[in-house]
Amino acid sequence: MPSLLPPALAHALAALLGDGWRVDAETLRRYGEDASRRGVPAAGVALPERREQVVALVHACRTHRVPVVARGSGTSSTGAAIPGGGAVVVGFERMARILAIDPADRIAVVEPGVLNGDLQRALAAHGLFWPPDPASADTCTVGGNLACNAGGPRTVKYGATRDNVLGLAAVTGTGDLVTCGSRTTKDATGYDLTHLLVGSEGTLGLIVEATLKLAPLPSARRSLRALYADVAAAAAAVARLMRQPVAPAMLEFMDRHCIRLAREVGGADIPDAGALLMIEADGDAATVELATRALADAARGPGLLALDAAPDAAASEALWAARRALSPALRTIAAGKINEDVVVPVSRIPDLVTGVEALAAEFDLRIVAFGHAGNGNLHVNILFDPDDAAESARARSALPRLFALTLSLGGTLSGEHGIGTAKRDFMAQAFDAPTLALMRTVKQAFDPDGILNPGKVLPPAAA
Amino acid sequence: MPSLLPPALAHALAALLGDGWRVDAETLRRYGEDASRRGVPAAGVALPERREQVVALVHACRTHRVPVVARGSGTSSTGAAIPGGGAVVVGFERMARILAIDPADRIAVVEPGVLNGDLQRALAAHGLFWPPDPASADTCTVGGNLACNAGGPRTVKYGATRDNVLGLAAVTGTGDLVTCGSRTTKDATGYDLTHLLVGSEGTLGLIVEATLKLAPLPSARRSLRALYADVAAAAAAVARLMRQPVAPAMLEFMDRHCIRLAREVGGADIPDAGALLMIEADGDAATVELATRALADAARGPGLLALDAAPDAAASEALWAARRALSPALRTIAAGKINEDVVVPVSRIPDLVTGVEALAAEFDLRIVAFGHAGNGNLHVNILFDPDDAAESARARSALPRLFALTLSLGGTLSGEHGIGTAKRDFMAQAFDAPTLALMRTVKQAFDPDGILNPGKVLPPAAA
Repeated sequence: MPSLLPPALAHALAALLGDGWRVDAETLRRYGEDASRRGVPAAGVALPERREQVVALVHACRTHRVPVVARGSGTSSTGAAIPGGGAVVVGFERMARILAIDPADRIAVVEPGVLNGDLQRALAAHGLFWPPDPASADTCTVGGNLACNAGGPRTVKYGATRDNVLGLAAVTGTGDLVTCGSRTTKDATGYDLTHLLVGSEGTLGLIVEATLKLAPLPSARRSLRALYADVAAAAAAVARLMRQPVAPAMLEFMDRHCIRLAREVGGADIPDAGALLMIEADGDAATVELATRALADAARGPGLLALDAAPDAAASEALWAARRALSPALRTIAAGKINEDVVVPVSRIPDLVTGVEALAAEFDLRIVAFGHAGNGNLHVNILFDPDDAAESARARSALPRLFALTLSLGGTLSGEHGIGTAKRDFMAQAFDAPTLALMRTVKQAFDPDGILNPGKVLPPAAA
Repeated sequence: MPSLLPPALAHALAALLGDGWRVDAETLRRYGEDASRRGVPAAGVALPERREQVVALVHACRTHRVPVVARGSGTSSTGAAIPGGGAVVVGFERMARILAIDPADRIAVVEPGVLNGDLQRALAAHGLFWPPDPASADTCTVGGNLACNAGGPRTVKYGATRDNVLGLAAVTGTGDLVTCGSRTTKDATGYDLTHLLVGSEGTLGLIVEATLKLAPLPSARRSLRALYADVAAAAAAVARLMRQPVAPAMLEFMDRHCIRLAREVGGADIPDAGALLMIEADGDAATVELATRALADAARGPGLLALDAAPDAAASEALWAARRALSPALRTIAAGKINEDVVVPVSRIPDLVTGVEALAAEFDLRIVAFGHAGNGNLHVNILFDPDDAAESARARSALPRLFALTLSLGGTLSGEHGIGTAKRDFMAQAFDAPTLALMRTVKQAFDPDGILNPGKVLPPAAA
């Protein structure tokens, strides 16, 4: 297959990157896909080892107006990492060093390609952790976490990626290396470009270094499992849990369908109920006891069917088994799955779940909801058989209605997956025209020629 | 005095704002000053009651290329709220409503003119608070807090203003009303314009509404006072305190000069020491006991001279009296005070304090340091007699050296006061040229004609 790249650019990148420049078909195919199962082959794959190479390759691509798509390990479920035709994909696996861990200042300085899980293991040796804990932690990169503002169960207490980044070095669409933020946890110096770059999905800059805010690793955890008669009772408990001063370290929700699936398909030891909350306290050996008591008190209320406390780590594992059994169970019963991550204000969780059940009935689909209740961030999973064309079409038709429902409840499209191409065309429902226009102007400020990950996040401007 | 404004603009604004348009000399003078004690009279003062008026007035000012300067209550110490010549100042005291307090979702929706202290009182009735707690809370506005990313002692546990804002409505320099962020605590939807607007000091937009993230009001607090032989011992204790899982609710530092001033001038009951830490635990009645114990354990270490725990609220008040005595004491001994808010990584606090003492010796000045140790955010106060021209000049000369010292320690210019005009010309030392240039481009994206608070935050571009 002839390269889609201008020959002069291909030569320049080969000279710049040596062994780190790939144009073989297998590599182009592999770097053209992500977990969204979309994508077209890359036109070239760059594997830089140093930030100077990133600067040079952006300059070269800009000269030829060739798109540049940053990539971590391709775990994006929204298509944020897939190239369009003719793009150079920049893989960061050779920029994966932990440059510094500074326990006294509670910061780490890393390159974007380091895996979240590898970082956590390195930090644990110092009694520290970095809060973002996506399910893909063992395979996803910190750069990818930064790009899509990844979260996870711990976000309810410790914040998502954006809340745990202090500074960034990034290469903009003009090939400029900018250094924003600081090494300090408080900063009122100039424009906050750091948090703007986080969640911009590679459309504003290629992150080449991050200064991360760390948290002390709790020495003790304790889990509670609460079953409720219905979602309203569980949501009221979530509001009570979030209003008292002991922050839960995790606060996870499962709807009644998920509970049944976890038992019937996943084999979890759990009775039927209208809704389930998994609640975790963390701290040290002494404080965790009292924290658990405070959380148990808040979990109690009208509609509580059962409240089980895990006295030790093994019992805690058993309680969390139901939550863990869920994803494999979903995979078993349906080969097709649209996994969304909508967010609503906590008080609207019952309306979201009721609305989702109505959508399931209307479209004759299995739709389940579970996730990060303390943030109102629910994974609504639309299940379907990809070999059943009619059911697949119904699943696709239900999606816009899910987003419309979420927005009508004062919520937003994504809590932790980002927008990519999957949700791009719903952005005009989430934001009014002047706000979208300003986002486009900001994009232009960072990337005047539109070469960075084009077609992601922002919908095409109306003609 | 004839108005400096184009007559057509003055007429349009008078028609738009009615009684909310002021051009009398006393009002122009008053709205031309802030706590920086700089300023020139405003050319006109607009007191809008509705966001539509803000939109219209920006449009009108843009037409005439007249600067627009947003103003809360003028407590800025950096000159961020002072107009240049010929500017319209927009005072937000008529847009001071608390539009919603939603305890279940832990959010409040407010107009920018509401006083921080008024908001806190309204929230306390619901068992909630908004974390930013600047010393000026009773007189400063939420809009001003947003504009300069205000902090305070509680930032160490609860974050500064930027960390506690979920969404904003703002009018940009084009007169567009944009609505960014969400009502949810997790958001990975599009570009984060919300946190970019926070701390932009009115140079990117005029905030007309904010959705604030609230925290549960702790029902119990407990204080500790730790005295150390020297700053290094205190800083090591700060690092220990920040590395264990119980976050201190406050963690304040005083250097040896402050300790002596608090006693000798402020009358506080406190012995001499090399450094002092005030440590607060919060929680409920049960958890606060254990939290206090964990913090006391962490406070203990080499160089600890005394550790006093306050058994009750009255004793706690007595311990904090020393900290509170400090500001009046400083005012008593020196009429002139340059109060900076530099930030360094926690581990560099000893180097900062040592460096400050060296500056004091070199410039023959009294310089003291105190503040928010958990964030490395120290108020370095350069004291001088304004009637002593030579001493005043030395104070001004010491300032650039303080900033150079801070930056050399990996710190940054401002932790909670912002940049304004006071620190604007040091921005080129804090950021490299491409990063400053990108900030300018971002400014242009929000405010293409440069009418919003011109001359603040960013230094003039090099010719």
